[in-house]
Amino acid sequence: MINTLGFDSDFDPSLLGRIINEKKEIGYYNLPNQDTTYIDNYLKQLDNQQNLDSISDVVVIGIGGSSLGAKAVYHFIKPIRQLKRNLHFMDSTDPVTIANICNSLNIGSTHFIVISKSGSTIETIAAYKHILATTKSAQLSYFPFTFITDQGSLLAQHVQKVGGFIINIQQNIGGRFSLLSSAGIIPLALTGIKIDCLLKGAAKIKDSFFNQGYMQNILLKKATFYAKNSSNYNINALFSYTDSLKYFNDWYVQLWGESLGKKQKNSAFNVGLTPIGLTGPKDQHSFLQLLSEGTRDKSVTFIKLKTFDNHQKIPDITLEKLETLDLINQVEFSTLINMQADAIIESLKEHTRIPLDEIILQKQDEFSIGQLIYYYELLTSLVGDLLNINTYNQPGVESGKNILLKKLQQL
Amino acid sequence: MINTLGFDSDFDPSLLGRIINEKKEIGYYNLPNQDTTYIDNYLKQLDNQQNLDSISDVVVIGIGGSSLGAKAVYHFIKPIRQLKRNLHFMDSTDPVTIANICNSLNIGSTHFIVISKSGSTIETIAAYKHILATTKSAQLSYFPFTFITDQGSLLAQHVQKVGGFIINIQQNIGGRFSLLSSAGIIPLALTGIKIDCLLKGAAKIKDSFFNQGYMQNILLKKATFYAKNSSNYNINALFSYTDSLKYFNDWYVQLWGESLGKKQKNSAFNVGLTPIGLTGPKDQHSFLQLLSEGTRDKSVTFIKLKTFDNHQKIPDITLEKLETLDLINQVEFSTLINMQADAIIESLKEHTRIPLDEIILQKQDEFSIGQLIYYYELLTSLVGDLLNINTYNQPGVESGKNILLKKLQQL
Repeated sequence: MINTLGFDSDFDPSLLGRIINEKKEIGYYNLPNQDTTYIDNYLKQLDNQQNLDSISDVVVIGIGGSSLGAKAVYHFIKPIRQLKRNLHFMDSTDPVTIANICNSLNIGSTHFIVISKSGSTIETIAAYKHILATTKSAQLSYFPFTFITDQGSLLAQHVQKVGGFIINIQQNIGGRFSLLSSAGIIPLALTGIKIDCLLKGAAKIKDSFFNQGYMQNILLKKATFYAKNSSNYNINALFSYTDSLKYFNDWYVQLWGESLGKKQKNSAFNVGLTPIGLTGPKDQHSFLQLLSEGTRDKSVTFIKLKTFDNHQKIPDITLEKLETLDLINQVEFSTLINMQADAIIESLKEHTRIPLDEIILQKQDEFSIGQLIYYYELLTSLVGDLLNINTYNQPGVESGKNILLKKLQQL
Repeated sequence: MINTLGFDSDFDPSLLGRIINEKKEIGYYNLPNQDTTYIDNYLKQLDNQQNLDSISDVVVIGIGGSSLGAKAVYHFIKPIRQLKRNLHFMDSTDPVTIANICNSLNIGSTHFIVISKSGSTIETIAAYKHILATTKSAQLSYFPFTFITDQGSLLAQHVQKVGGFIINIQQNIGGRFSLLSSAGIIPLALTGIKIDCLLKGAAKIKDSFFNQGYMQNILLKKATFYAKNSSNYNINALFSYTDSLKYFNDWYVQLWGESLGKKQKNSAFNVGLTPIGLTGPKDQHSFLQLLSEGTRDKSVTFIKLKTFDNHQKIPDITLEKLETLDLINQVEFSTLINMQADAIIESLKEHTRIPLDEIILQKQDEFSIGQLIYYYELLTSLVGDLLNINTYNQPGVESGKNILLKKLQQL
């Protein structure tokens, strides 16, 4: 992974020290080096109970941080590889969505993973009850559920009563930082996605940042630039030139938005940076006009794949009356898409002063997305520190939850 | 459709007059009242050639305004109805996406619709060449293509040489305003979606706005408020509480972003409003924290469905240790999701001064989304007028296109 910044920035050297300090408490930092034997143990136990070969589909019942992470990695790898099992995500209370997912499944060959950090997420428990009723009426000889939750949560206590597999989320890990914890990697392991490569990718960025490697200066500079300019450039767009990063964009939106949209620690000022996820070349025909001529309130990070998994060329066909477009003939689609990204970068550099940077991923594999994940987690932590906020909580969502509970009580 | 504004605003009465004037030139305004016999004629001719019953899949080859509109309506209706044909969208140059779409199709039962307003969109022509080579090697007895383009375009001239069905886009209609033109409704008609109901919904909003109905004051006030506060609230989020509006959100992002991100007519100031599409309740666990405690730079429009097409209740199951959540038992999922929206609206009203409004759609059908489409097109035109920009062009995307062409010439 290469990251080229189109802007420069100084940074306060003590920032690194503060992050090293934070690393002692906040759990996500050390996930790349976790002992993963619990995954193999779990797969063996599950095989004993339900026979892994009989499971064709896995449904994650979880919302927000309990689904966005696995979804991002799954949809990055799935387009290029025949995986062992399909992964579905039940992350809504839309009754039509729930019915359509259920109708598409064969209950006898499905395993369900209920994921809730707190253990009492209302959407997740509602969907769990629905699926529980469905599986009961199917009269299975086994209990087709795995539960992933914080140690000691109400859901963990529930599992002790009713059985089912239980896996704890590692300690001090917020939902949106839980991709590389059990919450993200257990469902991914069931599809056959290579968890060791994913973690190795993350570890590479971790080592580079904490051991004075290539990423250290880049991340310190980029975070400082974003924080210092947060009132001018209050929007940070991620423009990914591969469809396979569509759900990574969604994961980024949660990570960035929920971490950085806060009241400041001392002043209680409302601060925040607004994330936007774009996909190229599609969004050249949607969002680009706003970038190039609209209000100057955005920075843009372009993400490109150095090597695509497909080398199809545009056929050597001349279309009568459209002969001017013969110049795309025999060009690889992969060359075209990267050239499109380069053309937009060049154009924005020429006509605007928008802060741009460019990330190049080596290829569409676990190692590359592992790098990207850890890179964005680090960047979020750094900017959060500089904005003088608590990056890891989300007090602003509590009031809505309480109002909902009151409404339900009044039914 | 009901729209309740959580803010008030005066407006300049001459705004309506300017829009009435614009209506004489800009083509989209009158699309709800179009003569649709051309659709039936087209379907008959296609039936004669390829036998409609033999077509199971339709692929739209088009990007931006040539795919986002049909995609929005298709994905709104598909979850609740068995449609006549599947619709696919080839709107990328990602080689893996293109290969995966092609591999999923049976060429013999597929019809392709190439859509390009200009007739020389590079992504569209590249994909067309690719599909052309594929269909040639399949040695079909017919030419499985329909072309939708501006009258006289290079693509139109091409079709005159090679054959295939051609349908013109009605006059003076920009890509992002073309949903209700042939570019949007021809592919939708092939799936069996009810075009008459879609247009009736749009006509209802049109009549209400232009004939001093319910929508006139609402739209004039809302547009004026957005324009006047565009430097404070430079981001306009759409928070849809149904998964079926996910692609409508994408359509809105293009319409809003590409129309309103401009240099002002006289001053050449860079202005613009940034669109964000959110889906509830999912994004309560992603974006809500940023709305509730982040920088005060956003307005939010909530969209709810009054009636869902599914009345599944949460089963009456008590979960040991989670007895506190018995309060959701026997509640319809549709009640829960709307209650979740209401709770968030109440919470934001209580704790912030974010400009909020609420749209309630009657149900998940063509009439309702037809209303919503025309409502947003009108709102965009109104805000564009007030911002003193050309709402209908996109000069900011030309430079990137030219750089790409130069790069291709240098290959």
